[in-house]
Amino acid sequence: MTIPKIKGVIYLNGKILPIHKATIPVMDHGFLYGDSVYDTFRTFGGYPLQLCEHIDRLFRSAAKLALKSPLAKKEIMAHVLRTISAYWKQFKKEDVYVRVILSRGYGDIGFDLSLCSHPTLIIIVKEIPRLPEKYYQNGIHVALVPTLRNPPRSLDPNIKSGNYLNNLLAYLDAKKQNAQDAVMQNYKGEITEATTSNIFIIKKGTLYTPSLDSGLLKGLIRTLLIDIARKNHLKLIEKKITKEALLAADECFLCGSIKLILPVTRCNNKKIGSGKPGPVTQRLMTLFPEAVTHSIREEYCIDF
Amino acid sequence: MTIPKIKGVIYLNGKILPIHKATIPVMDHGFLYGDSVYDTFRTFGGYPLQLCEHIDRLFRSAAKLALKSPLAKKEIMAHVLRTISAYWKQFKKEDVYVRVILSRGYGDIGFDLSLCSHPTLIIIVKEIPRLPEKYYQNGIHVALVPTLRNPPRSLDPNIKSGNYLNNLLAYLDAKKQNAQDAVMQNYKGEITEATTSNIFIIKKGTLYTPSLDSGLLKGLIRTLLIDIARKNHLKLIEKKITKEALLAADECFLCGSIKLILPVTRCNNKKIGSGKPGPVTQRLMTLFPEAVTHSIREEYCIDF
Repeated sequence: MTIPKIKGVIYLNGKILPIHKATIPVMDHGFLYGDSVYDTFRTFGGYPLQLCEHIDRLFRSAAKLALKSPLAKKEIMAHVLRTISAYWKQFKKEDVYVRVILSRGYGDIGFDLSLCSHPTLIIIVKEIPRLPEKYYQNGIHVALVPTLRNPPRSLDPNIKSGNYLNNLLAYLDAKKQNAQDAVMQNYKGEITEATTSNIFIIKKGTLYTPSLDSGLLKGLIRTLLIDIARKNHLKLIEKKITKEALLAADECFLCGSIKLILPVTRCNNKKIGSGKPGPVTQRLMTLFPEAVTHSIREEYCIDF
Repeated sequence: MTIPKIKGVIYLNGKILPIHKATIPVMDHGFLYGDSVYDTFRTFGGYPLQLCEHIDRLFRSAAKLALKSPLAKKEIMAHVLRTISAYWKQFKKEDVYVRVILSRGYGDIGFDLSLCSHPTLIIIVKEIPRLPEKYYQNGIHVALVPTLRNPPRSLDPNIKSGNYLNNLLAYLDAKKQNAQDAVMQNYKGEITEATTSNIFIIKKGTLYTPSLDSGLLKGLIRTLLIDIARKNHLKLIEKKITKEALLAADECFLCGSIKLILPVTRCNNKKIGSGKPGPVTQRLMTLFPEAVTHSIREEYCIDF
């Protein structure tokens, strides 16, 4: 079997290994049931953006599944930094993708929590997956898809878990429609989010993003952008957004911890606004690096 | 770390290993996203019940995720029998639990199917998890829980996949209510299934089971029991079942490929019927072994 090469390292229960050598037991419930939580982020200048907030969210996801971390938050953060450093030593690249996974661990078949006494902590550090530059310059094409977002009463989208088939199915729907990503609706037809990002639209200069009660992940870049908008006196409203509002928007973009701000210029094969990234989207893309610098300066008490 | 002892063997991409030594890469999408399908069954007298039908269903689940098996159905069935035989050589027990898993395989982060070129085939053969005998004699207590079954338009319950948190959350709800299992409803309040089994109720001598359009797995023991009922002139109706109908039933039972027929005698801390396994449930429990013998005789062309 030819193994696709991935540049990266993995912290696994105390050891740092090459990415392709890190293995878990078949009987880990993270594999058998997707019974795991994770959080993902990237570094800027070597510093993980919003590290504290991501680890806080990891623990909130875990609490919703009654999953207890074997390590304290501070210890996990220290291991994240240590794993980033191990990556740097090997690959000499400062900026990396990080995924922290907490899995239920090894145990016999069944749901009883007593079956798994040792949760597994994993930290993946690897090169940042880069979308083509033209996606950022021209915007991407999204599709409204038949797969509907998991409702919070079935599986809360605020649990970032190892159950990702709902999103994968939506992504496969989008591919069938020749789109780069899917926009998922809830059972009332409200827009929720894309498969791995939050969504914003702009109409007559005002930013709109789906309110959390539509059933979506409270993304940390979403929160950061709301903050940037407020500080820069851009009008922003969180509310229920219909498919019609999305199709009639002047501008649209997705945001997430890895892709950051990604303009959307077509939906269901129709142009959004002028069909090019609009002025408000571009303004936010310009303001974003400064906000990142500010956030990292605050978190790590440094000047860079 | 003390590893809980599980008696079993695992077939993993061509090799048969002790259960605790079988590992998969952290980067297997079955672990990262729960991007896998499975099917599970047990043997009687050493013969897997409904083997063909289980492998057919595994392939149907896989097709819904555009997941291709590296082996043909017949090859998988041969490996199942070979793995059962390896278990027998080591543990000298004829009747076993079998779980066949087909996982997306090793690949970089992302949903693109091209990232994973080699799906992973796993066959777990281990001792049958035995519920306490009193559960079968006295019946169990189930709870109607707040967690609602995944709707088919989000994640079809007919895909037996590695995304099992919806069921796990329902199970944890049930435990909070001191029940042994959960009965899950859909968004219209219709009864769907328990966390790993189908459900039947009996009222005035007639069997009722939720119709598939309520959003539930078409269980193979469910199908077998419908067949047994028809052959034995028991009246059986598949229809939408309300919570009220369940609470007012004379009898109730769960069924599945491992637990077989399990009487339910309490729901939400209230007795169902007399609070004891009823005559129709007991009749089916009596008829069941004969149907199993018949099914195995047909499938393997043997007399035993």
